[in-house]
Amino acid sequence: MRKIVIYVCGLFMVLAAFACVQKDNVNLEWKKEGQGIWKISVGKQEKVTLLSELDITPQWKAIEEIGDAPLAIDPKDVKTEVVDGKTYIRFPLDKDEKIFGLGLNFKTVEQRGRVMRLHVDHYGGSDNGRTHAPIPFFVSSKGYGALINSARYIDVWVGTSVRQDSSNPPVAKDRNTDKDWTAQPYSDNLEFLIPAEGAEVIVFSGKTMLDVVRRYNLYNGGGCLPPKWGLGFWHRVPSLFTDTEIEREVQEFRDKGFPLNVVGLEPGWMTASYPCTYEWDNTRFPNPQAFTKKMKESNIQTNLWMNPYISPKGELYDRIKPYTSSHTVWCGIVPDYMMSEAQRILIDHFKKHQLNLGVSGYKMDENDGYDSWLWPDVASFPSGTSAEQMRQIYGSLMQKVTTQMYKDENKRTYGLVRAANAGTTSFPYVIYNDYYNHHDFITALVNSSFIGVLWTPEVRASRTSEEWLRRMQTVCFSPLAMLNAWADGTKPWTFPEVAESVKAISLLRMQLIPYLYTAFADYTFKGTPPVRAMNLEEGYNMDEKMLQVSFDATNNPYALAIKKEVKDQFMVGNSLLVAPLFEGEKERKVILPKGKWYDFYTGEFAGEGEIISVSPGLDKIPVYVKDGGIVPMFPPIRQIDNKQYPLEVRHYGNAPGIYDLYDDDGETFNYQKGEFVRIVLTVDVDASNNKMGKASIPGGKNVWSYSDYIFRYMTK
Amino acid sequence: MRKIVIYVCGLFMVLAAFACVQKDNVNLEWKKEGQGIWKISVGKQEKVTLLSELDITPQWKAIEEIGDAPLAIDPKDVKTEVVDGKTYIRFPLDKDEKIFGLGLNFKTVEQRGRVMRLHVDHYGGSDNGRTHAPIPFFVSSKGYGALINSARYIDVWVGTSVRQDSSNPPVAKDRNTDKDWTAQPYSDNLEFLIPAEGAEVIVFSGKTMLDVVRRYNLYNGGGCLPPKWGLGFWHRVPSLFTDTEIEREVQEFRDKGFPLNVVGLEPGWMTASYPCTYEWDNTRFPNPQAFTKKMKESNIQTNLWMNPYISPKGELYDRIKPYTSSHTVWCGIVPDYMMSEAQRILIDHFKKHQLNLGVSGYKMDENDGYDSWLWPDVASFPSGTSAEQMRQIYGSLMQKVTTQMYKDENKRTYGLVRAANAGTTSFPYVIYNDYYNHHDFITALVNSSFIGVLWTPEVRASRTSEEWLRRMQTVCFSPLAMLNAWADGTKPWTFPEVAESVKAISLLRMQLIPYLYTAFADYTFKGTPPVRAMNLEEGYNMDEKMLQVSFDATNNPYALAIKKEVKDQFMVGNSLLVAPLFEGEKERKVILPKGKWYDFYTGEFAGEGEIISVSPGLDKIPVYVKDGGIVPMFPPIRQIDNKQYPLEVRHYGNAPGIYDLYDDDGETFNYQKGEFVRIVLTVDVDASNNKMGKASIPGGKNVWSYSDYIFRYMTK
Repeated sequence: MRKIVIYVCGLFMVLAAFACVQKDNVNLEWKKEGQGIWKISVGKQEKVTLLSELDITPQWKAIEEIGDAPLAIDPKDVKTEVVDGKTYIRFPLDKDEKIFGLGLNFKTVEQRGRVMRLHVDHYGGSDNGRTHAPIPFFVSSKGYGALINSARYIDVWVGTSVRQDSSNPPVAKDRNTDKDWTAQPYSDNLEFLIPAEGAEVIVFSGKTMLDVVRRYNLYNGGGCLPPKWGLGFWHRVPSLFTDTEIEREVQEFRDKGFPLNVVGLEPGWMTASYPCTYEWDNTRFPNPQAFTKKMKESNIQTNLWMNPYISPKGELYDRIKPYTSSHTVWCGIVPDYMMSEAQRILIDHFKKHQLNLGVSGYKMDENDGYDSWLWPDVASFPSGTSAEQMRQIYGSLMQKVTTQMYKDENKRTYGLVRAANAGTTSFPYVIYNDYYNHHDFITALVNSSFIGVLWTPEVRASRTSEEWLRRMQTVCFSPLAMLNAWADGTKPWTFPEVAESVKAISLLRMQLIPYLYTAFADYTFKGTPPVRAMNLEEGYNMDEKMLQVSFDATNNPYALAIKKEVKDQFMVGNSLLVAPLFEGEKERKVILPKGKWYDFYTGEFAGEGEIISVSPGLDKIPVYVKDGGIVPMFPPIRQIDNKQYPLEVRHYGNAPGIYDLYDDDGETFNYQKGEFVRIVLTVDVDASNNKMGKASIPGGKNVWSYSDYIFRYMTK
Repeated sequence: MRKIVIYVCGLFMVLAAFACVQKDNVNLEWKKEGQGIWKISVGKQEKVTLLSELDITPQWKAIEEIGDAPLAIDPKDVKTEVVDGKTYIRFPLDKDEKIFGLGLNFKTVEQRGRVMRLHVDHYGGSDNGRTHAPIPFFVSSKGYGALINSARYIDVWVGTSVRQDSSNPPVAKDRNTDKDWTAQPYSDNLEFLIPAEGAEVIVFSGKTMLDVVRRYNLYNGGGCLPPKWGLGFWHRVPSLFTDTEIEREVQEFRDKGFPLNVVGLEPGWMTASYPCTYEWDNTRFPNPQAFTKKMKESNIQTNLWMNPYISPKGELYDRIKPYTSSHTVWCGIVPDYMMSEAQRILIDHFKKHQLNLGVSGYKMDENDGYDSWLWPDVASFPSGTSAEQMRQIYGSLMQKVTTQMYKDENKRTYGLVRAANAGTTSFPYVIYNDYYNHHDFITALVNSSFIGVLWTPEVRASRTSEEWLRRMQTVCFSPLAMLNAWADGTKPWTFPEVAESVKAISLLRMQLIPYLYTAFADYTFKGTPPVRAMNLEEGYNMDEKMLQVSFDATNNPYALAIKKEVKDQFMVGNSLLVAPLFEGEKERKVILPKGKWYDFYTGEFAGEGEIISVSPGLDKIPVYVKDGGIVPMFPPIRQIDNKQYPLEVRHYGNAPGIYDLYDDDGETFNYQKGEFVRIVLTVDVDASNNKMGKASIPGGKNVWSYSDYIFRYMTK
C-alpha cells in the first residue's frame, strides 16, 4: 500500500515537473517547401540563422527534376521541446540506420555513437564538433536528412543517449559477470540541443542518400562552378616573396614542365599582416597591376591570402572602425560583416586594391577560430549579432561578400577559406587548414560530400619522398590541387627521386579537367558533389565493424569498442573510384561496389562487387572506372589557357556509355543565361564487343574548349 | 567631410546597438557579507546555483579571525552585462598579475593566457575546462578572489581577449617584418560568460593569496576533517575478489609488515554493477556484516565503490524510479538527487545495506561524465533542474547526501569521488580519476589547493619499479595514500626490488599522521589547505617563463610561446616542502622560498631562498623543513588503531619552534562540540643553540593518541 502511495505521488511529481518545464511538445506542423523538402518551426524563431544572411536562391527547377520522394520517417516521431531556454529536437533511429554528416569530421565517417558540440573552430585532432564547417546537417541511410538551421553552438547526441520511455530500450547487464556488457548500450534516437528558444529544421527526403544530399545542395543554391583555371594546379609561394622571386619561380615551373595555373601570395604581399591592411607592399610589389598582368600573360591567376583583422596601418581602418567588434584580434579591429555599411566599405577597398588590379580571388584565413585568438564569445558587434552567432557564420559571410563582389563584375572566382557553414554550397571556396594528417585529410574529403562543402588535402611538406608523392597523388584528385609552400618553400620537384612522378600526376590532373569540370557542372545544376563518399555510391554496402578492444585500466577503462570503417577511398565524378595509398603502404584493399570495375590506367578488369588487394607501386594512385564509364581528357597541358584542344574520350569496360560533357566560357556567369553546351559523348557496343564512339553537340551550340574528339577504348 | 559623416553615422549605430543589447552595465551594489567577503548579484538570479543545494554554513568566527582586508580592486572596474540571454562579467588585470584556480587543471598552474569552458567531465588530457572539479573560482596575486556561483557551463577568457576600449591596449605589429610580433597580444581583462540571464559573484579579499583561499574555504564551511584512519594506507582490491580473498590479502599485508588501514572494494561487491544495485553479492560475500566486523577487528575500514546508476535487478529500482531522469545511463536509472524523496529513499537503502553493516564510506565513480555515457544535456529531471545544472552539481549532491548520512550517526567518513564543484570543501571526499600521468597528477595536487578540493595521485600500476616507487612516494604525501589495484591486482610489493623502499615510505606516511591530522585540523578550523601550491607560500616568488618556441607550419603555425612554470613541488602542512622525482630523473631542481630550509631526513641545512639541485637516490623523495619547523611523528605503526603511542617531536634548524598539535577521538563529530585538544609543542633555542622542547596541554584536557613526547633536534 505504502509503495502504491509513493508511486502515485512520484508520478504526480513527474507530471508536474514536465508540465512546468515543457513548453512545446505537440506535433508540429511540417510545412512543405518544395518537392521532398519540409520546414518545421520550433519555438521562437531567431532573426539570424545559418541561412538567413546568405541570399541563397534554392534551385527549385532542379529539385523538381530529382522528383518527389516520400518522407522516410513519421513526423510524429520527431519530438521537440523548449526547456530551460534551449530547444530540444529528437529524431528516431532504427536498428541498422546510419547517420552521416554533422560537420567536417576528420576521423570518422558514420556518426552513430558520438557526442559533439558543433562549433566553428580550427580542427584540433578529435571529432568533437569543433571544426571548420560544423554543419548541423545529417543524412540518414533511411533516405532523409535534416538541417538544424540555427547559428548557435549545437549539441548533438548521435545514437548515444537512451531514454526511459524508449519503445525499444536496451536491457541492463551486469558488468561484473556478463561478458556481453557494453559501454555503449543501444540507443534509438538522435538528439539535438540548441541554446536558443527556438530553431528551424529543414527536412529533405530522397530515394537514396545521394538524392537527399543533392536536394540539400540544390536548396542551398546548387554547388559552385569554379572557373576552369581553378581546376588547374595551384602553388602558394613563401610569405615574403617579391614579384621578381615569384616570376622566377613561375619560370622554373615552365622550364621544368610542371603545370601551374594559379599562384597564391601569402601575408607578405601586404604592407602589414596579423592584423592586415589589404594593401600591397610596394617594396616587394612596386607595381601590383603590372605584376598580375604579367602573370595573366603567362596564364597564371593571382590569389591573395588575407584574414579578417584590420590593421591601424592601412587606409581601411578609420573607415571601418565604427562597424567593428568590441574586441580586437592580434590588435586588429574585427569588421561586422552583418552590416551593409561594413560590407560596402570592404568591397570598395577590395575592388580598389585587388579586383581592379587583376587579382582572381582570396585565401581567407583565421575566420574559424583557434579560440584564444578569435574574438571571444563575450564580444559584441554593432549590428547586435551575438558573438556566438557571428562565429558560426563569419566564414559564410566573408564568402558571400567576396563571391558577390566578383559576380557583380561577371567574373568567377575560386579560393580558399578556413570556415564555412550551411548555405555556402554555392560559394566558390574550398576549405583547408593547418592540420596535416594525410589519412585524416582523406576522411575530410569523404565527409565534405555529405554537407555541401569542398575540402582540399593541400600538400605543404613531407618527411620523405614517398609521403610527398602520396600526398600529391591525392590532392590531384581533390577539388583544389595545391602545393602550399608559404612556410616551407617546397616545390613540386623538392624530392628529385619522385619529381617525374609528381609531374606526371599533376599533368594527369590537368588532363582530367574536362571530366572534373563536368563533375562540377553536375554539382551546380544537379547538386551532385564532385568528390563523394563511397556511402553515396549505388551498390556500395560496407558496414562499419565494431572492434572489441581489450580492457585497459588507464587507456580504455570501459573497454569501449572502436568502430572500424572505410574512410580511405572515394568517388570523383560519376565513374572514377580513387583509392589512395599512404606512406609506408605497399599494398591496400579496395572495396569495389556492385558491377564491374576497370583499372583507369590499363583498362583491365579489376573486379566486380568485391574487395581486391592492390600493390600498384609508388608512382601510381589506384583509380578504377565503372563499366561503361567515359572519361574525357585533355592532352597533358600545363595550363588552362582558353585555347581549344583535341579531347581524348576514354571508354572503359564493355557496357555502352553515355556522358554529357559540360563546356562554357570557363570564367563568367554567362552560363546562367544559357551560354553553355552539353556535348553528348556516347559509346555503343555491339554483340561482338565492337565499340563505336560518337560526339554530338545538340543544337549545334558553341564549344569553347575542344577542337576534336578522339575515342579510345581502354578495355580490350 | 564625407569621412566625418560616416564617422558620426557609425558612432550613432554603435551606440544604438549597445543600447539595444545592453541590459545591465551600471555599477552594481557590492553587498558586504562578512569580513573581506562581498556579494554581487548580476541580472536575474537562478534558483539552483553551485552553493544553493549544499546546506553550507560559513565559518564566520574563523573568518573574523583572519581579519578584514581591503579589496584589491576598485568595484567600478568590474563590469557586468546581460546580453543574448547570457551574463557577462569582466575583471581587470594588471600587468604582472597572476591568476590561479579555475578548476582542477592537470597541465598548468598559472591560468593567464588560457580559454576554458568550465564543464564537469572526466579529464581528457588538456586543460580546456572539462575536468572533475571545474570550479569557477579564481585567486589573483593582487590579493583577492572571486567565485562565479552559477551551476552553468561557464566560458572564461583569462587574459586572452583584448577590448578596443582598453585603457592599456597592446600595439599592433606587422607579422611580416616585426620580430616582436606575438600570437597573443597583452590582455588586461578576465572575462566570464555565463549562459543564463543572471549570476551571483562572491568576492573574497586577503592580505595574501593564502588568506583569500582560507576565506573562501571557510565560507564554504571550512575544510573537511577526515577520520584518523582515513590518513592511513588504503588498498583497493581487484573487482571480483571474495571475502576470503580479501582476508587473505589483508593477512599478507600483515605478514609482510606493510601498513593497511582501509580496504576498498570495487564493483564486484554488488549483485550487479553498471548499473548498480548497492546490494551485496552473497556468492562473493555470504555475510557482509561479519566481513566488515572481521575487518574492523583488524583495524581495517571497508570502503565501497559505487556509481549513480541504478539497476532494475535491485530492490531500490522500483522505489526510486519516480524520481529519476528521462534518460538512463548503462541502462540504469538516474536518481534526481535534488529531490528530498529521492534522497530519503537512497539514504534508507544505503543505511540498510552499508552503513548499518559497518561500511565506512564510498568511492563514488562516474558522476563526472565521460560524456558519451553520462545523461545527455537533453535529459530532464523530475525536480525540474536542468541537465546542465545537474551535471555541474551532481557530484556535490552525492557528497552532501552521504556526508550527512554519516554525520547523522555521528560518524566521520572519508571517501573518493570523481566530481566536485564549489561548496564541497567541507565534504570528506578526495577526487581521483582514470587518467594516469605522474607529472600531471602532481600538478593537480598543486591546483587542488586553490579551489577548496582534495586530490589523490593514486597508484595503480607501473611499467618499471622506478616509476612504481616514485608514484608511491608522492601518493604518501597526498591527502589520501592509496594503491588502487581494482584492475591490475598490484600489491605494494609487486616490484620486489623496491618493496622495502615502498614499505618504508608507506610507514613514513603512517608516522606523519599526527602532522597530517593537524594540517587537516587547520583546513577545518582555519581554512588552510593541507597540501598547497608553492604560490600560496610566503617568501616564494618564482615567475613563469615564456619560452619562445620555433615556428612550425603544422605544429605551431603561430609560433605560440609556451609557458614554463614550476608545478612539481608543493607544501604539506605548515613546514614541509615536498619535491617528488619522476621516472627517469636522477636529479632535480628545488626552489626553496625565503628563509632557511633543512633536509627532512638528516636535518642538514639545504639552502636559503635559492634554487638547489638534488640527487637523493631512488629510495628518497626530497622533503625539506622550514627553519624552526616542528614535525610530530608516530612510531612506524601499521595502522591507526585508537591506541596511544609515544610521539616523536622533530625540530629542524636553529630558530625556535611552536606547533599546535591537534587531537580528538578521530572518528566522531564531538570535536564540533569542543571535544578536542591542541597540544602546544615548543622548542626554545638559546644563544648557544641549545634546544629545549616542551609539550603543554592547555587546561589539562584529554589526549587521545599520545602517551609521551620525545623531542628530537634534527639540526646540529
